[in-house]
Amino acid sequence: MTRIGVFVFDGAEELDFVGPWEVLTMWAKSFPDDDVEVFTFAPGAEVVTCAKGLRVVPDQTIDTAGRIDVLVYPGGEGNRAHLSDDAIKGWLNKLAADGTLMTSVCTGSLVYAAAGLLDGRPAVTHWAYLEVLQGLGQRVDVRKDERFVDDGNVITAAGVSAGIDMALHLVQRLTSVERAREVKKLIQYDPQPPV
Amino acid sequence: MTRIGVFVFDGAEELDFVGPWEVLTMWAKSFPDDDVEVFTFAPGAEVVTCAKGLRVVPDQTIDTAGRIDVLVYPGGEGNRAHLSDDAIKGWLNKLAADGTLMTSVCTGSLVYAAAGLLDGRPAVTHWAYLEVLQGLGQRVDVRKDERFVDDGNVITAAGVSAGIDMALHLVQRLTSVERAREVKKLIQYDPQPPV
Repeated sequence: MTRIGVFVFDGAEELDFVGPWEVLTMWAKSFPDDDVEVFTFAPGAEVVTCAKGLRVVPDQTIDTAGRIDVLVYPGGEGNRAHLSDDAIKGWLNKLAADGTLMTSVCTGSLVYAAAGLLDGRPAVTHWAYLEVLQGLGQRVDVRKDERFVDDGNVITAAGVSAGIDMALHLVQRLTSVERAREVKKLIQYDPQPPV
Repeated sequence: MTRIGVFVFDGAEELDFVGPWEVLTMWAKSFPDDDVEVFTFAPGAEVVTCAKGLRVVPDQTIDTAGRIDVLVYPGGEGNRAHLSDDAIKGWLNKLAADGTLMTSVCTGSLVYAAAGLLDGRPAVTHWAYLEVLQGLGQRVDVRKDERFVDDGNVITAAGVSAGIDMALHLVQRLTSVERAREVKKLIQYDPQPPV
């Protein structure tokens, strides 16, 4: 069983986590033999109010979540407080040390950088925060033109909608390109931006 | 004030409504002078469990929502029950008659067709339901290759992720191509499917 925890918190940007959520839950539900579980979890059990006002009831808390094989850490204004939150940063370091595959979307990577997880490593974030990312951690190798950056046990994605692309990459990495293509087809991800 | 109601219900597909939600709330929040309000609403006030398990607390109910200038009606297995629900279909017909701009994502258009809103009109749905759509209503003109179809007071989108494209079109239609491009940039919607 691969357990994927999608972290939510007050001020998390909605599409940052629902994009990967859709990709990963479509994978889990459509291909039960792959033995994947996806759940939301939050610092506490109460209802989370996202950055644009969507209210979400988390499935688990940090304390009850259990083993997390893959973490999805979204961005959103609510995570700025995490930059100086030693409990959050310590928890992220412990997860990484314990072997969790750490993924982030948008400004989620700022917190990874502040926790020291990106020191000397390639990473990306929302286009408006590239300089902020550069100023966090030690010698982060900011890849401004990448949609997502896979550096082994840490995968960072660019802003908001980039989480969809990153999650499809994750399905491919954990299974096969064929499986990722099947999931892509199920969510009809043939984007045609009209503007 | 333009009031946009994003309908949610048990079994609604997550990205179907969070894609447009992100686009439309980013527009509303980033450009307050455009005077747009976006809210979720559901048949009742209780927590909604979406198709893949995400739990959402609706802001309003059908009874409390008030005027709805634009409706976003998502797909998801939960809306199959709406196909034969005369209360839902009657409500949709009343909204359309009262001047609401009716938009749908994915299999949301099946319910619009069942309600007679697509008789003799062009429309689209998730690729796996094109034949189902053809069999509902009277002479629906199914546009299988379109990402979304704008037919005046009804706009239908293809499957799941197509709601993002449709919502950007909606911003363009209600304001300008420049505004839609600004929203697109804020959500960094430069998709690069890796598979």
